[in-house]
Amino acid sequence: MTDFNVTRTRFHLPDGVIYLDGNSLGPLPSGAVDRATRAMENEWGEMLIGGWNTAGWIDLPTTLGDRIAPLIGAAPGTTLVGDTLSIRLYQALGAALGLTDRRVVLTDSGNFPSDLYMARGLLKTLGQGHQLRIVDPEAVADALTQEVGVLMLTQVDYRTGRMHDMAALTAQAHAMGALTVWDLAHSAGAVPVDLAGAGADFAVGCTYKFLNGGPGAPAFIHVSPRHADTAPTLLNGWLGHAAPFAFEAGYRPAPGIARMRVGTPPVIQMRVLEAALDIWDDVDMADLRARSIALSDCFIAGVEAACPALTLASPRDPHQRGSQVSFRFADGYAAMQALIARGVIGDFRAPDIMRFGITPLYTTRADIDAAVNHLAEVIATRAYDDPAFRARRAVT
Amino acid sequence: MTDFNVTRTRFHLPDGVIYLDGNSLGPLPSGAVDRATRAMENEWGEMLIGGWNTAGWIDLPTTLGDRIAPLIGAAPGTTLVGDTLSIRLYQALGAALGLTDRRVVLTDSGNFPSDLYMARGLLKTLGQGHQLRIVDPEAVADALTQEVGVLMLTQVDYRTGRMHDMAALTAQAHAMGALTVWDLAHSAGAVPVDLAGAGADFAVGCTYKFLNGGPGAPAFIHVSPRHADTAPTLLNGWLGHAAPFAFEAGYRPAPGIARMRVGTPPVIQMRVLEAALDIWDDVDMADLRARSIALSDCFIAGVEAACPALTLASPRDPHQRGSQVSFRFADGYAAMQALIARGVIGDFRAPDIMRFGITPLYTTRADIDAAVNHLAEVIATRAYDDPAFRARRAVT
Repeated sequence: MTDFNVTRTRFHLPDGVIYLDGNSLGPLPSGAVDRATRAMENEWGEMLIGGWNTAGWIDLPTTLGDRIAPLIGAAPGTTLVGDTLSIRLYQALGAALGLTDRRVVLTDSGNFPSDLYMARGLLKTLGQGHQLRIVDPEAVADALTQEVGVLMLTQVDYRTGRMHDMAALTAQAHAMGALTVWDLAHSAGAVPVDLAGAGADFAVGCTYKFLNGGPGAPAFIHVSPRHADTAPTLLNGWLGHAAPFAFEAGYRPAPGIARMRVGTPPVIQMRVLEAALDIWDDVDMADLRARSIALSDCFIAGVEAACPALTLASPRDPHQRGSQVSFRFADGYAAMQALIARGVIGDFRAPDIMRFGITPLYTTRADIDAAVNHLAEVIATRAYDDPAFRARRAVT
Repeated sequence: MTDFNVTRTRFHLPDGVIYLDGNSLGPLPSGAVDRATRAMENEWGEMLIGGWNTAGWIDLPTTLGDRIAPLIGAAPGTTLVGDTLSIRLYQALGAALGLTDRRVVLTDSGNFPSDLYMARGLLKTLGQGHQLRIVDPEAVADALTQEVGVLMLTQVDYRTGRMHDMAALTAQAHAMGALTVWDLAHSAGAVPVDLAGAGADFAVGCTYKFLNGGPGAPAFIHVSPRHADTAPTLLNGWLGHAAPFAFEAGYRPAPGIARMRVGTPPVIQMRVLEAALDIWDDVDMADLRARSIALSDCFIAGVEAACPALTLASPRDPHQRGSQVSFRFADGYAAMQALIARGVIGDFRAPDIMRFGITPLYTTRADIDAAVNHLAEVIATRAYDDPAFRARRAVT
């Protein structure tokens, strides 16, 4: 049984803050500074170039991948850490397209824009008449025709938290002869994920949200063992070579997941991520999910009772929802700034979505109740009319 | 006048070590741990998601780019930090190819293999009959015909330290109607570079070698102001969008260098790099170059006098050499391990190259003399015959 009173102590949370934005950036794990300091002083400082061997830096992309694998239902040796989510999406989609002759990539309008941008860029670069077909999230199943080569979806919608049924859609895609690329940005560490059970072909995700790896923490990619030795690579960096230090003239992709390596991985950032992943050793995903649903339902009930002006944007059925709750409100941007000024940190997504991440590792029932009270006061007092709260910032 | 006695104090160097591998991984700057700790405790820990605005994380790719720019002769606003060198090379070559109708990319056999791998992967993905033409380094000038669309070179050869004349080759490329992509991996912080003076079109480089940014420190890309608003982008990540937080359906590249941004940048790693770049504020590149040449010439003379079995692999003319000295020796791998066991750290590149980085920021004349003496003893005593020194390690 996961003890969430203990997991909460493993983060630094500023005094007076109720943090409901762990779906954007998880908070600082208490072990992170020490881990980074040791990596710099004891590894980099003392071992210098020898750290690549002696401290195991060269293997961190796979050792950390194997730490993430159990959280996403992936077998050991199938997940690799490094680069950014956008780069990983490009790799995964490129590999999937290399395994099919079909020319249609099916996705939905709830996908994160960067996924759509990267995909469009890739399809244009390929120059073979590929088409990115974007349908409403509810229409994905019906749009899965035999034209579709790759189904590329973000499992949990970044705005509303609506969650696709990965197992059902993957099965349907396979039945139609299509491959799947799943973006787990808002799934990994948020909800139980079973990539192997679903038979998913490719998956990507980031580690700075629910996995708490820190600002700019590296992304991950998963390749099903079915494709690991045959997946074509587009980004042929030297560390994905079968013999990177032989410096051969020609590129030979490494067997397995290592072929998805590109360049030199960010060691300090990976040590910080490692400290964040330690926390998950004591967490059962079923416990986390149960607590996430309980806290979310409590938050929804509280806000709906106290703030009738706000409309639930997330699915009411918890089984169709990730680990966030979103409400629509015309003055949502300013209302969120007013809430942040009170120490309740959520965020805003255009045009009118107030977004609240539910992160049981460090969020308590008392936090949820206090957040509801603050939000109720902001709405009741029209605190969002203050011009100071209406000025937009660079990053929202 | 640069005071190299002072710059040396700004690094942590382990006791008993003479470090001649700063061309692979620079040592730990003394301010790095504190900077990373503050970034984690005071920024991430206290500001949480707000750090993107309040601590200026979102601008770090360009603010750090502007710190590197003076070291490579680039104007402010033309250089961007993030991702890996392999990714940056892919972006730069892709952008250059988008600006020409020609189908030949000219490069040389001294280029770093990852550049060749990435380029081949890109040309194959483009599927338009592009050709990667690889000639000997000495044959580049003659091979610059009107067929060539892009001249893609690493300025300083990673094995021998041979240095191309960037100004002359860029001028010749332009005269033939070709664009240039320069890899500055072994140039930035090693030798004076004048991208603007040469009129170079695109450049990329890494920051973990002579710039001392740490293991896996992010790379950089430079785009000439001539192309900054028109360069096509292949990797259309959201942070390269003109309005990344508007979450528009379509991709509109940002004006200027920002269009080369891709995904979320590695903040902790960038703070460490920032501490490393502080050291350069007090360094004049002409002083650095003079000292690099003096130390290198001294090392060459010492080794040639003491070790006739070793053959100089680097150009003897310092003006054709970067900031490293390489010798060929059939037992070079084992000899280098024997040398490392004595605390003199260089490295080895197949098939027979013993490589020594010359890094005046922290390497003294006494270090050079001691390194020569150790190497002379290793060779004279055939210490390299010890089987322990012949066992290969993962990363060499």
